[in-house]
Amino acid sequence: MLVVGENINASNKSVGQAIANRDRDFIQNLAKRQEEAGVDFIDVNVGLSHGSWVSPEAAMEWLVEAVQSVTKKPLVIDSDGPEVIKAGLRTSHGDKIMVNSVNAEPERLQSIGPMASERGALLVTLAMGQDGIPKTVEERVAACEMIMENLKHLGVKEEQVLFDPLMLPVSVDATQAAVTLKTIESIKSHFPSARTIIGLSNVSYGLPSRGLANRAFLMMAAAAGLDAAILNALDAKAMSCVKAARMLLGKDAACRSYVRAYRAGTLVE
Amino acid sequence: MLVVGENINASNKSVGQAIANRDRDFIQNLAKRQEEAGVDFIDVNVGLSHGSWVSPEAAMEWLVEAVQSVTKKPLVIDSDGPEVIKAGLRTSHGDKIMVNSVNAEPERLQSIGPMASERGALLVTLAMGQDGIPKTVEERVAACEMIMENLKHLGVKEEQVLFDPLMLPVSVDATQAAVTLKTIESIKSHFPSARTIIGLSNVSYGLPSRGLANRAFLMMAAAAGLDAAILNALDAKAMSCVKAARMLLGKDAACRSYVRAYRAGTLVE
Repeated sequence: MLVVGENINASNKSVGQAIANRDRDFIQNLAKRQEEAGVDFIDVNVGLSHGSWVSPEAAMEWLVEAVQSVTKKPLVIDSDGPEVIKAGLRTSHGDKIMVNSVNAEPERLQSIGPMASERGALLVTLAMGQDGIPKTVEERVAACEMIMENLKHLGVKEEQVLFDPLMLPVSVDATQAAVTLKTIESIKSHFPSARTIIGLSNVSYGLPSRGLANRAFLMMAAAAGLDAAILNALDAKAMSCVKAARMLLGKDAACRSYVRAYRAGTLVE
Repeated sequence: MLVVGENINASNKSVGQAIANRDRDFIQNLAKRQEEAGVDFIDVNVGLSHGSWVSPEAAMEWLVEAVQSVTKKPLVIDSDGPEVIKAGLRTSHGDKIMVNSVNAEPERLQSIGPMASERGALLVTLAMGQDGIPKTVEERVAACEMIMENLKHLGVKEEQVLFDPLMLPVSVDATQAAVTLKTIESIKSHFPSARTIIGLSNVSYGLPSRGLANRAFLMMAAAAGLDAAILNALDAKAMSCVKAARMLLGKDAACRSYVRAYRAGTLVE
């Protein structure tokens, strides 16, 4: 399972302030700590406001440059604004990069699809129609099919896509975690070349002991075939669970990484 | 998911001594603590030796009586010896009871099957042939089919059976945890009225950070449809994971039990 570290996101107050104040050290420290924690990708999101910057595009350019000057880990350019994504892609270097995200909205598809195609970027694709998040597995997979059809016309290959099956918090609807697990399985069988990804923390919104619920759900999703998760990379317990999942799913030859992490003292029970 | 507390087992040295020494307080305390921790069944196993008792049968009779005089939780009569199981069943009262276990051995089937049938007991049934634990999903399910056929002739109904898909430690064979997960799914689809159960701790044999690996695997197995687990009920982290699993799989209406456990301070992150 791939890990996308979610920590450099302006919706986190201290990160938002660091972006607004051009605090390069703060951002770079956060990037390095995520790399040390063992992430595969580092998400960068400048949010909606942009502080002292002339535009969110300018903020994204600064952010990408700041992060890439301290780590070779590939980035996830994460924004609601296609122009911000464009700025992030333009500034970033390296072969491997991910864009977060497109959904069924024609405008987003038309603008972001061709960028992802041209750059050969991985593309997070939300399993939702134009009317919000569907309640059933079948409707979510149908939304994926419709979006994939459009993406193909825009030059995006199935192997570039990471479908996000989406999660409604279990506190809102007790059936929804199970729906998401079944959606992961169904996407995996419908799109054998595509991958799946979730933003982990949604599942526990509104609950106490969120970390416990998040980690439990992450292991369930891993068993259902999840390929990647966006999560708090500085949560040592979550990262320890990822290592356990890799081992249990046969992705850690002779349990070597797990034992090595134990010896290094980074496995947290 | 049902929890079988594994703590009253003579293979645990202090429990073995308590049985040998007829230390009723020690055993009863262990039973009460498991009940408080929220188990659904309490396993009782007198092991092979029997200390000052004239026989393991006599030890089992004492053990069952000691436990049942402090808790109404149903028991799991756990033994390699059919006569010991017989003694446990004879001494115990209550409608609900489980026997652990039978496998493909004709002698065990012939002796334990009719007892389970007569008593209407649940029956743990190991997915192994007479030549040990099969390596593949298909062979394990085939073993289940063969055993189920025999059990039916002995009067045991499918709904009485809990199949144990068996686990070889992941440290011995990295593919085996995934095989067990797939075996759970396959058993669930082959035997819609039967249930599945695992003895959790085997998965992590030979590894460090066993608790972490055990809990991660428990959540994976829960997602695969596991109905019951035999585990250390006094491990508050494992019991917290069980509560999270029940909630995430839609078995905890409005997340009430999870939130109640949090308020009671029994959820351990």
